[in-house]
Amino acid sequence: MSQLANERVAYFNGKIVPESQVLIPFRDRGFKYGDAVFDMTRTFGHKIFRLQEHVDRLYKSLAYLKIDPQLSPKEMIRLSEEVLERNLHLIGKNEDYWLGQRISRGVGESFSGTENAGATVIVECSPLPLKHRAPLYRDGIDVIVPSVRRTPPDAMSPRAKTHNYINLVLADLEARAQDAEAWAVLLDQDGNLCEGLGSNVFIVSGDRLLTPRARFVLPGISRQHTIDMAERIGLPFAEADIDLYDAYTADEMFLTSTSLCICPVRSINGRTVGDGAVPGPVTRQLIDAYAKSVDFDFMGQYLSHLS
Amino acid sequence: MSQLANERVAYFNGKIVPESQVLIPFRDRGFKYGDAVFDMTRTFGHKIFRLQEHVDRLYKSLAYLKIDPQLSPKEMIRLSEEVLERNLHLIGKNEDYWLGQRISRGVGESFSGTENAGATVIVECSPLPLKHRAPLYRDGIDVIVPSVRRTPPDAMSPRAKTHNYINLVLADLEARAQDAEAWAVLLDQDGNLCEGLGSNVFIVSGDRLLTPRARFVLPGISRQHTIDMAERIGLPFAEADIDLYDAYTADEMFLTSTSLCICPVRSINGRTVGDGAVPGPVTRQLIDAYAKSVDFDFMGQYLSHLS
Amino acid sequence: MSQLANERVAYFNGKIVPESQVLIPFRDRGFKYGDAVFDMTRTFGHKIFRLQEHVDRLYKSLAYLKIDPQLSPKEMIRLSEEVLERNLHLIGKNEDYWLGQRISRGVGESFSGTENAGATVIVECSPLPLKHRAPLYRDGIDVIVPSVRRTPPDAMSPRAKTHNYINLVLADLEARAQDAEAWAVLLDQDGNLCEGLGSNVFIVSGDRLLTPRARFVLPGISRQHTIDMAERIGLPFAEADIDLYDAYTADEMFLTSTSLCICPVRSINGRTVGDGAVPGPVTRQLIDAYAKSVDFDFMGQYLSHLS
Amino acid sequence: MSQLANERVAYFNGKIVPESQVLIPFRDRGFKYGDAVFDMTRTFGHKIFRLQEHVDRLYKSLAYLKIDPQLSPKEMIRLSEEVLERNLHLIGKNEDYWLGQRISRGVGESFSGTENAGATVIVECSPLPLKHRAPLYRDGIDVIVPSVRRTPPDAMSPRAKTHNYINLVLADLEARAQDAEAWAVLLDQDGNLCEGLGSNVFIVSGDRLLTPRARFVLPGISRQHTIDMAERIGLPFAEADIDLYDAYTADEMFLTSTSLCICPVRSINGRTVGDGAVPGPVTRQLIDAYAKSVDFDFMGQYLSHLS
Amino acid sequence: MSQLANERVAYFNGKIVPESQVLIPFRDRGFKYGDAVFDMTRTFGHKIFRLQEHVDRLYKSLAYLKIDPQLSPKEMIRLSEEVLERNLHLIGKNEDYWLGQRISRGVGESFSGTENAGATVIVECSPLPLKHRAPLYRDGIDVIVPSVRRTPPDAMSPRAKTHNYINLVLADLEARAQDAEAWAVLLDQDGNLCEGLGSNVFIVSGDRLLTPRARFVLPGISRQHTIDMAERIGLPFAEADIDLYDAYTADEMFLTSTSLCICPVRSINGRTVGDGAVPGPVTRQLIDAYAKSVDFDFMGQYLSHLS
Amino acid sequence: MSQLANERVAYFNGKIVPESQVLIPFRDRGFKYGDAVFDMTRTFGHKIFRLQEHVDRLYKSLAYLKIDPQLSPKEMIRLSEEVLERNLHLIGKNEDYWLGQRISRGVGESFSGTENAGATVIVECSPLPLKHRAPLYRDGIDVIVPSVRRTPPDAMSPRAKTHNYINLVLADLEARAQDAEAWAVLLDQDGNLCEGLGSNVFIVSGDRLLTPRARFVLPGISRQHTIDMAERIGLPFAEADIDLYDAYTADEMFLTSTSLCICPVRSINGRTVGDGAVPGPVTRQLIDAYAKSVDFDFMGQYLSHLS
Repeated sequence: MSQLANERVAYFNGKIVPESQVLIPFRDRGFKYGDAVFDMTRTFGHKIFRLQEHVDRLYKSLAYLKIDPQLSPKEMIRLSEEVLERNLHLIGKNEDYWLGQRISRGVGESFSGTENAGATVIVECSPLPLKHRAPLYRDGIDVIVPSVRRTPPDAMSPRAKTHNYINLVLADLEARAQDAEAWAVLLDQDGNLCEGLGSNVFIVSGDRLLTPRARFVLPGISRQHTIDMAERIGLPFAEADIDLYDAYTADEMFLTSTSLCICPVRSINGRTVGDGAVPGPVTRQLIDAYAKSVDFDFMGQYLSHLS
Repeated sequence: MSQLANERVAYFNGKIVPESQVLIPFRDRGFKYGDAVFDMTRTFGHKIFRLQEHVDRLYKSLAYLKIDPQLSPKEMIRLSEEVLERNLHLIGKNEDYWLGQRISRGVGESFSGTENAGATVIVECSPLPLKHRAPLYRDGIDVIVPSVRRTPPDAMSPRAKTHNYINLVLADLEARAQDAEAWAVLLDQDGNLCEGLGSNVFIVSGDRLLTPRARFVLPGISRQHTIDMAERIGLPFAEADIDLYDAYTADEMFLTSTSLCICPVRSINGRTVGDGAVPGPVTRQLIDAYAKSVDFDFMGQYLSHLS
Repeated sequence: MSQLANERVAYFNGKIVPESQVLIPFRDRGFKYGDAVFDMTRTFGHKIFRLQEHVDRLYKSLAYLKIDPQLSPKEMIRLSEEVLERNLHLIGKNEDYWLGQRISRGVGESFSGTENAGATVIVECSPLPLKHRAPLYRDGIDVIVPSVRRTPPDAMSPRAKTHNYINLVLADLEARAQDAEAWAVLLDQDGNLCEGLGSNVFIVSGDRLLTPRARFVLPGISRQHTIDMAERIGLPFAEADIDLYDAYTADEMFLTSTSLCICPVRSINGRTVGDGAVPGPVTRQLIDAYAKSVDFDFMGQYLSHLS
Repeated sequence: MSQLANERVAYFNGKIVPESQVLIPFRDRGFKYGDAVFDMTRTFGHKIFRLQEHVDRLYKSLAYLKIDPQLSPKEMIRLSEEVLERNLHLIGKNEDYWLGQRISRGVGESFSGTENAGATVIVECSPLPLKHRAPLYRDGIDVIVPSVRRTPPDAMSPRAKTHNYINLVLADLEARAQDAEAWAVLLDQDGNLCEGLGSNVFIVSGDRLLTPRARFVLPGISRQHTIDMAERIGLPFAEADIDLYDAYTADEMFLTSTSLCICPVRSINGRTVGDGAVPGPVTRQLIDAYAKSVDFDFMGQYLSHLS
Repeated sequence: MSQLANERVAYFNGKIVPESQVLIPFRDRGFKYGDAVFDMTRTFGHKIFRLQEHVDRLYKSLAYLKIDPQLSPKEMIRLSEEVLERNLHLIGKNEDYWLGQRISRGVGESFSGTENAGATVIVECSPLPLKHRAPLYRDGIDVIVPSVRRTPPDAMSPRAKTHNYINLVLADLEARAQDAEAWAVLLDQDGNLCEGLGSNVFIVSGDRLLTPRARFVLPGISRQHTIDMAERIGLPFAEADIDLYDAYTADEMFLTSTSLCICPVRSINGRTVGDGAVPGPVTRQLIDAYAKSVDFDFMGQYLSHLS
Repeated sequence: MSQLANERVAYFNGKIVPESQVLIPFRDRGFKYGDAVFDMTRTFGHKIFRLQEHVDRLYKSLAYLKIDPQLSPKEMIRLSEEVLERNLHLIGKNEDYWLGQRISRGVGESFSGTENAGATVIVECSPLPLKHRAPLYRDGIDVIVPSVRRTPPDAMSPRAKTHNYINLVLADLEARAQDAEAWAVLLDQDGNLCEGLGSNVFIVSGDRLLTPRARFVLPGISRQHTIDMAERIGLPFAEADIDLYDAYTADEMFLTSTSLCICPVRSINGRTVGDGAVPGPVTRQLIDAYAKSVDFDFMGQYLSHLS
């Protein structure tokens, strides 16, 4: 096994190998069709966040696509822990990892009668883009709502975390054509805000925390963790239909994701959110509760990477 | 370059290599997001069918996704011809190839600030599944309309030929769970028939040939060729909204695709199409005109592979 | 009154007559237009289940269609009891009846100026198909989701129980073309599961019981009774948007109806539900609670008719 | 066979019988579910209008519902002619008949395992309501657009002529609650005018005749005949999306149906159509061409019944 | 300042002037585009009802349209109080005022490069139409559901109170063409009842009070006050999807608005609501609680103006 | 009549007055509800363009809203000509006017029983923003597709030219927040491009000119004139569903409006249209034909105002 001294390793179809050897045959359905699922958690101070929940969601995605990973959830958890363990020495103390699993259906076409050779399984990690994103925690995210709408559930459920991301990529292309640092948050088929590429959205309206209903969004683990934090600090919360009227009249807004945890939004469609405080007071409370619950000051970590 | 004596070669990022060396890094966006496009034509008696049109459509798909292949259409055509040339000796006289191009956006994430290293380009061919599909030309295809609806154009255009096929895979899983040899043809968001995984649908109703409007379907080259044949034999033709009433009362039905050319449908949702003739008289006329125009008896070729 | 010795009787426009004499003039709007409503309960050990609720719902259906039955709910109840009474001697101890009321608008066309002669009223019963359905309780129901969508409420409310069933018949034709014993459960206009021909659907997901919102489904009395049972056994319950992602990742699934009470589902679209146990543990608890509440082992009754 | 001297006869499951003996068992699916289809033509001066086309459409409706009438179209035509023949002596010279066929799926339930005993077939005629409708030809029809929308094709095709009319009955109830003589014309799911209970709608806008696309409406034979007449008199015609803007700015409007042929509309939603002429000049031309083509002054016949 | 002795005054861009001097330049965007927002409360016995809430809502409407009034909410409240104060002497003791604020974006076009000169601000009052509406409290309102649908939130949010009312005017034109005293209540894009021109709708169904979800309706202050009253009298309440099935089977129905407070509905689409009592017993309870909470018998006031 | 020496005059309710005296009472429904319609043409070298067609369309808008202007189309034309005549001396030789009519329903509320005092009628002109827009003809327009969707026809027809523009203003606010010079072109409810604030959109795709179907857009007179020019120069043309796939793969794109005539589009959503030529060759041909047909070099006029 040839490996650069500082190269990360990954699990790939039964073996731990250097990442440069995790190479997908181009006839793999994961490449040709995006016919694959994944999930992704992160570490906080090198400790894994809610791995069990992420793996549970991974197996729901697999069930939705009827892909058999030929590994049990327990094995998947063990492999994830092992992959992390073997890569931790490669990052600094003030850095952390994304840690994820990717399973494609493998090679083989029912319509041409070629046998399916079984799933392709990868477990891998990569450093969080702390430096790149640090300004977002200082300034807030600028959100643009693109014209492209989120894929409706009767075509493909947004709740399965698959390798079919073009809908979200198109949204990002729209937003970034206007502002290279903007993030897209899409509308669903009913015209309500739903989610962005890998992120959930929340607003604070009066004394209530609101987030889009789970049906049109990936039910993020960090989204759920944020909801739990709201309960912990006694903040009324509801899933709701949230449209642009709500967004334009919100007091505060923020995005959540595995890697972001909670990151404040500064503007939406060029309109300052609330009075422009980043983060707003309620968002600040939630960030604090979140940090306390994971025993890690994620916002401080991001800000420490500001150049 | 190690290559098995009978291994096909493919173009891969600047070089012609054995197919087993066309390996995609797992962080390529083509794998992680299906963020890639492709096109595919076939040979008739080892001669390429309408390569220019397929490459034109490929560049429209690239434009839609804003992917820069760093190759001109002319170069793409030349490479395609070269790849075919170097693989022809590997198939028999009575066999033919699919010939296709695949371009992914490559590695790199705007949201994490990693540079995009440029597109991944593959030109490849593979033998048509003549033997596997031969029975379809004898018996007709059994079509099942699944409950999953085709992705609507405001989420992702069905007219771009991308690597995001889960919507169509879900449709196929539904159909094949009922009948392992059935083909799915989906409804669009308005409840009209649109297309299947890689195939277009036509019906003959009275004295007219009808096919779904182009908006909700990949505007197949073979679809267009079939329309041209209808004109050649003086058959009235129209793009139309075609729903299940039309399908259940049609006189004939068939699918088209690059590889199928024209293949008769025997039944839809368990109902025999028309009087059950496979192919029906009009379909037979179109098959004959098609074969004549490409100077190749594709149906005869398929049937000759019946075991 | 000529009547076969073992012929059931029914109430028909003012009289109790043998069923063979309940004959509808072909110009009755109930025949020509399905311009009629009905409701249907069952007996448990020859005792009527929630007749008051069924008659209340019948009068809501009448109000929706603005049909005047010229009988009060009380009279309808009394007639129902009488019809049952006069037919009980015709079934065995281990058998039970459906007991229903049907009211059409009668003869007469506003658009041609013919007088409406008043409603046609029938009260009738028929033996439950215990033997035919017994295997469902042993093996579970195989559900297929058809491509046809449930009629939307702004065209005709699914909550009124009318004689217009073609939408549901079309769904059944689709399902049974694939599998003669399968049951159809349709999607509503938003792509959520709603109901089948005369049945409601429930899933168990994690520790929660879920069923589609009442808006798109007939608010079944047995559906409500099942919800009551969930409360009784302390099972968290919610009305929810339930799509195929939920269905494919559910732990358990079952159908309810007047006659089925609760019947487990084995598969949906060819995918085994949960781990394939029939019934699953939560379904079993609900069946037990249901049986206890009606003081009748309906599942045992069904299974006793297995040949 | 007991028959009143002046009673009409009808064909019923193999025999010609007095109408009073055409009685449907209440368990017939045609009654319980409206699970039946029909078609209807009329006579002009006692001669049948386009019977072949109506029977062809009938068999398409049968195919859509997968009902087997166990009679060939030829036999159906012959029976229709015979039924008419045997009833002609019952009406006056200045009167005419509707002549129709009705086929239900018969008795039997797949879900309870009762055998289907075969289709119920009726061929029948009834006098046109000439006197009742005569004022419409003098004054024009008042159209009201109800809030209820036409059943969408993915739930049940409006192009099949079935016994499921509640959607249209609800529309009529809305219109007639406001004005007992008004006719309802519904909007389809896209908000375009489609059809009323048994009638098609046309507008004259500038120098063009327009009618809703066939997808959302029963493709009326009289609708087609009117289109043919437009061609005959050189009037430009198109199928089009027609919404309330078109209706409110139309120069003329009329309804067509088998019995109406062409009948002018005076107002829509309380707004006078065009300048209020009944019929307008173009409608008049079409009425004349229609009358000439069927060699019968249908409008004169109606008006002659004015009391 | 020339003013008739009994002329009302209003605030207009910085000054209190006679109403006849509140004149809008025809190039003001409030006139050309309806590009303006407003809000409106009323007095009870000359005391203002919930002015703070109305002004809060006004500023949400301003935020939605990104109009800067160049006045703080506090100033707006003070001006409103002043305008009322200066007009109170013009009405009788048994009369009351509407009191409202209107802010347009002013003159100026981005697309032609003309500067925006700043918002136009009006604060004004006008006497409630007590006499005109008095019969509604005696007889109940007749509601007609028009065919025109409420503007969907992704085109323009119904929750912002703007000067774009044509959608509601079209609805009113439909209803009043049928019955000059009828009120329109529209359906939203999903076919649920939402609101009328300035009014919210409630139904009483069984023991529950229901009103449409806030997303498709202006969240009326009086709507909220009614909900508060329901809580006060212990009446179970829910926001719900309310369609025509609910409306036709409701026990009671009423409208709320700033000026109406609560006014009973007698019929909907020509069908008597419940048993026809005006008001029904639950509506009566709510009216009493409402009157008590504002310390004013609004219904008595209306009825006292019956001629 | 006090008038500044260089002040324009306008027709206002029966008189020609200085523009500063065209003042709308704030209770006029045109202000309160945008309950008004308008139309607008322009001059070419001080000669009016297609006034008859614009006035015809104005009267269709009036009919749609049921507003009676109490003036005949002929009078409206005459007044328009007079207003222009009396203002021509105020502009230079190289300048031109917009010339328009605006009619509101006037004062009065059906719901409060105040009499309607009759329509408010204005005929007015204003100089074209030649200097402001000149750069667009040199550089091309940058189009942004906003997330807000065009109001659907069943809520309010986009084909009537009314004073309700908030939907389009919201779209503009989105676009201009990203780029102060960008123009918004909206999607309709089906996700197709429709129109912008006062402009129609065309694309050139291959050898065909395409523009959105008339149903979702104001059927612009300049749009029609452009279509006429296409016919004149032998360019194949069709109304079509045009979505973002079409837009992103178009060879050329341009906007039309009364004032713009034809103005090239440089980019859409940040993507260069075609090869970036402004105008493209086909657009250039159409501009030339347009200029020739109106005998006026409108593009030259715009460009001559470049500073």
